[in-house]
Amino acid sequence: MKRKIVIVGLGLIGGSLARAFQKYAGCPVAGIDRDPAVVQAALRCGAIGKAGTEKDIQEADILYLCLYPQADVQFVREHLSSIRPGCVVTDTCGIKSWICPRLSGLAAKRGFAFVGGHPMAGKEKSGFSASDADLFRGASYILVPCGAPRETVNLLRNISAELGFGSAVETTPEEHDRIIAFTSQLPHVLACAYVKSPQCLKHRGFSAGSYRDVSRVASINETMWTELFLENREALVGELDTLTKHIREIRDAVDTRDADTLRRLLREGRLIKEKLGE
Amino acid sequence: MKRKIVIVGLGLIGGSLARAFQKYAGCPVAGIDRDPAVVQAALRCGAIGKAGTEKDIQEADILYLCLYPQADVQFVREHLSSIRPGCVVTDTCGIKSWICPRLSGLAAKRGFAFVGGHPMAGKEKSGFSASDADLFRGASYILVPCGAPRETVNLLRNISAELGFGSAVETTPEEHDRIIAFTSQLPHVLACAYVKSPQCLKHRGFSAGSYRDVSRVASINETMWTELFLENREALVGELDTLTKHIREIRDAVDTRDADTLRRLLREGRLIKEKLGE
Repeated sequence: MKRKIVIVGLGLIGGSLARAFQKYAGCPVAGIDRDPAVVQAALRCGAIGKAGTEKDIQEADILYLCLYPQADVQFVREHLSSIRPGCVVTDTCGIKSWICPRLSGLAAKRGFAFVGGHPMAGKEKSGFSASDADLFRGASYILVPCGAPRETVNLLRNISAELGFGSAVETTPEEHDRIIAFTSQLPHVLACAYVKSPQCLKHRGFSAGSYRDVSRVASINETMWTELFLENREALVGELDTLTKHIREIRDAVDTRDADTLRRLLREGRLIKEKLGE
Repeated sequence: MKRKIVIVGLGLIGGSLARAFQKYAGCPVAGIDRDPAVVQAALRCGAIGKAGTEKDIQEADILYLCLYPQADVQFVREHLSSIRPGCVVTDTCGIKSWICPRLSGLAAKRGFAFVGGHPMAGKEKSGFSASDADLFRGASYILVPCGAPRETVNLLRNISAELGFGSAVETTPEEHDRIIAFTSQLPHVLACAYVKSPQCLKHRGFSAGSYRDVSRVASINETMWTELFLENREALVGELDTLTKHIREIRDAVDTRDADTLRRLLREGRLIKEKLGE
């Protein structure tokens, strides 16, 4: 790959992308991070080929924004005059209805292309020290074209395959946010709510896979997720209300000792899972 | 091991115990199941050494009850005159306040020992075909002594180590049920409630580990779990109310765009997880 890649933000996602470019595409990237120690660490271990400069931004073929959503937009605003028409700008953040119109607007103004992106991979830990060239192996890559030229979408799609993603899907910002509220945001809320039971601190010796699974992502980065939750407020509140309603149905059946209803409610869950073939 | 072991119920747990006795203790067990096809399958693959008879029950040193709770009690009632004083009877079911006094009572009447047991291992699938000699590797084995002689508790503890369990803890029926409502029952309710969102059927391409983790156990055996939930009604309803309260706090902070409260609520979850060192 001969393209000039700049990655902005070398946290878990940006750091892992940089490492994947190095390992799987043989393409060292220019890396930018507000923390000089992170840039140094990334240079030392070879995750990035160089510390990114304004000149690298000016020459970039693709600019991956790997900051929090508001910081992504802020970065593009601050460097707008450096981003050349012809550059493809993409982000990696977990919400899209908020960020896509903003970055598409800036793209139209300046004449570069913007395609929303969301790599469906993560970890309980954050930061460059948790980054991993194999984080995306087999994962899905969500693309939100927002009217960008077909070739730019295909370019990002092809690169994702080269970096080890298992598949790529395309969607709108609105559909993305509705589904992500369910698949990703809801489990994070749940994990945090779950571990607050007074029983949690006594779980050792009394727990197995199902405790581990529900509680896993409670080690949340609260600053990032607060921003992500508030930027997907309506969809998330909707999903939380749906979930709470279904929990309450089961709760009431248990409380009233209504075995038939309880069995039916549990069976409904099982049948959905079976329909999905999981 | 020269002891005579009888296992009643060759489902996921009983079948796995039988296989573990065979593989790790070199001790073929006598297996009983109401389904003759299951007994045949267990014989064919060597999971059991023989189909258990009334004589095997009479000669048993240890009788493992691996049915649903009510069926466990029913089995002991029906075979009470066959169980000799000196035999150790134990169960494997997921609730204890309901079953322990019943089986302790029968034990006292007949002069055998009863110790409640709960292997903290499971799978999304049930039945003998899902059983696995390695199901218990590293798992915790909960013992509920209920006043049984120390040597019988130690016997079961030592056998569990031989079968590959990672540790054994002892507790009361009440404490067991309070903690299990949180560590095991709650995640099963959650999984069933979670997959009922209309977004669930669209998750492919938009999901990763956190979806997979929360939804995993939705493929629930609704007959067994209905019984387990109703036999732990008070503790489970209490946990569901606690969880719903904590979900609602987060939901309201999102709904009212209260970033400070939201960040604090998420941080609380993270700190608990960190305190646990997970």
